Amino acid sequence: MALLFLSDAARGEVFRAAFAKALPQVAFHVQHAPDPAAVRWIVTWTCPDLSLYPNLEVIFSVGAGVDQFDLSAIPPQVQIVRMLDPSIAQQMCGYVTMAVLAMHRDLPGYLAQQAQGLWQDRPATPAAQRRVGVMGLGQLGLAALQALRPFGFALSGYNRSARQIEGVACFTDLPAFLAQTDIAVCLLPLTQDTRGLLNRELFAALPAGARLVHAGRGAQLVSKDLIAALDSGHLAGAVLDVTNPEPLPPDAPLWRHPKVIVTPHIATRTDDHAAAAHVVAGVGASLAGQIPPGAIDRSKGY
Amino acid sequence: MALLFLSDAARGEVFRAAFAKALPQVAFHVQHAPDPAAVRWIVTWTCPDLSLYPNLEVIFSVGAGVDQFDLSAIPPQVQIVRMLDPSIAQQMCGYVTMAVLAMHRDLPGYLAQQAQGLWQDRPATPAAQRRVGVMGLGQLGLAALQALRPFGFALSGYNRSARQIEGVACFTDLPAFLAQTDIAVCLLPLTQDTRGLLNRELFAALPAGARLVHAGRGAQLVSKDLIAALDSGHLAGAVLDVTNPEPLPPDAPLWRHPKVIVTPHIATRTDDHAAAAHVVAGVGASLAGQIPPGAIDRSKGY
Repeated sequence: MALLFLSDAARGEVFRAAFAKALPQVAFHVQHAPDPAAVRWIVTWTCPDLSLYPNLEVIFSVGAGVDQFDLSAIPPQVQIVRMLDPSIAQQMCGYVTMAVLAMHRDLPGYLAQQAQGLWQDRPATPAAQRRVGVMGLGQLGLAALQALRPFGFALSGYNRSARQIEGVACFTDLPAFLAQTDIAVCLLPLTQDTRGLLNRELFAALPAGARLVHAGRGAQLVSKDLIAALDSGHLAGAVLDVTNPEPLPPDAPLWRHPKVIVTPHIATRTDDHAAAAHVVAGVGASLAGQIPPGAIDRSKGY
Repeated sequence: MALLFLSDAARGEVFRAAFAKALPQVAFHVQHAPDPAAVRWIVTWTCPDLSLYPNLEVIFSVGAGVDQFDLSAIPPQVQIVRMLDPSIAQQMCGYVTMAVLAMHRDLPGYLAQQAQGLWQDRPATPAAQRRVGVMGLGQLGLAALQALRPFGFALSGYNRSARQIEGVACFTDLPAFLAQTDIAVCLLPLTQDTRGLLNRELFAALPAGARLVHAGRGAQLVSKDLIAALDSGHLAGAVLDVTNPEPLPPDAPLWRHPKVIVTPHIATRTDDHAAAAHVVAGVGASLAGQIPPGAIDRSKGY
């Protein structure tokens, strides 16, 4: 029985060492498996031609999402597992907190003043009057809301299925959520329902002067609608870690928009050792006939 | 018995209303007291000629600090009270958290890439390997350390007198503290000992690649030493909310330094209603022969 590792070579060495120690009975192959029929587990970002691996049991994504896979191309008996790395939630809540505070303080406005050498207060809103709403209340959204507590914002959250979080107004109705959100944080997974969700209609449903923090997936964003909402003055700012398209081409107008901060998809970076431990645990579960941690619900797509 | 209010007029109206409700027996004067001998309390930012007010008991600062007063010009029997506003700690911990995360993520580097339309990862350090040290462990420093907990940094603090804080390595020895600090946050009060403290010697005591967040007082900073430390590459970045001089003149080199983010002393803004409640409580304490909350220790200067 063998595992085929299709991600980058340096990370592969970390995985190889972890498997040699914990599961020496598993043959560990990087990039190429001499006997494809022996492959029961694949670790990858993009999906290879799975018809080569008739005995595949589990495909592990090296990222927190699985939206890069075409689920319909993966045989139904194959389990799909996303990366769970405790440091990812910590990294994401750090990025989101930085971005929300930057929007709350109008950092783009202060950066523009800095470029002019202008020492001047800009209008400020007390935190208690700033309503911060997180879209997507999974592991990442919960961690972000937790980290935002000390600053005194009015917190809310949107999730397709109902959630209860102390001190957080939880919504399953998107328009109702948007109508009371001054800083909207998108942490939704990419699915059929969320592709293109951050569009003209959604922006119009936010109060005038609202701001966006986007750390979900690039394909959720309709860039021209965001630019139009910013230029009309309806939206006051945005911090984008993911963009559409991605990478953002050098001449894309979002780079130079004075109300926008763009970072190149750096909110989280998977830690190789944590990732290897996660996949070792998943293969261990698979060998024991159990469901690997992080296995997705294929009907939902996440 | 009268109170003389010497701060801005709009804030004065909030104070007048609070006094009319809580302490109607106190005559409330803005800018000018018809009978200076009746004045027992003054609320101000700068210190007026106190020889006019022979019966003065308490001078209230409208700011969190009292370093704008020449303490030697205030008669010894006059109590000096600094502003206590619970929202100030919340605002400050928001600013510090934003600034620390911006330094941790190298936001100035990403902003420079944004200006060029360049989509590229920059070197990153896991939070667990980033040592964040707070100088000044009063109310503001404690709140900042508390807010920084969720992000996984290695936390430490420096204070002249010893402190114990769970999960935070506390130092009273400044060089020992500096030697283990990758992101130094200055929240110290301005005193004789801290004036000019952020100088060449202090920067040299930080590890190579360290970063500075300055939200203490402008006069603690030796600007040319900071620029030299940044230009030599020893320091990797700075976020400054206070500067020297302040306001920073339009042609000051700090405005245009690519590794520096400058904001115009906006980390905290006193809430008029909270401030009025604080001064009402202080006058009440004074009338009852008690020490007003926020009275400073004149021997320490804060």
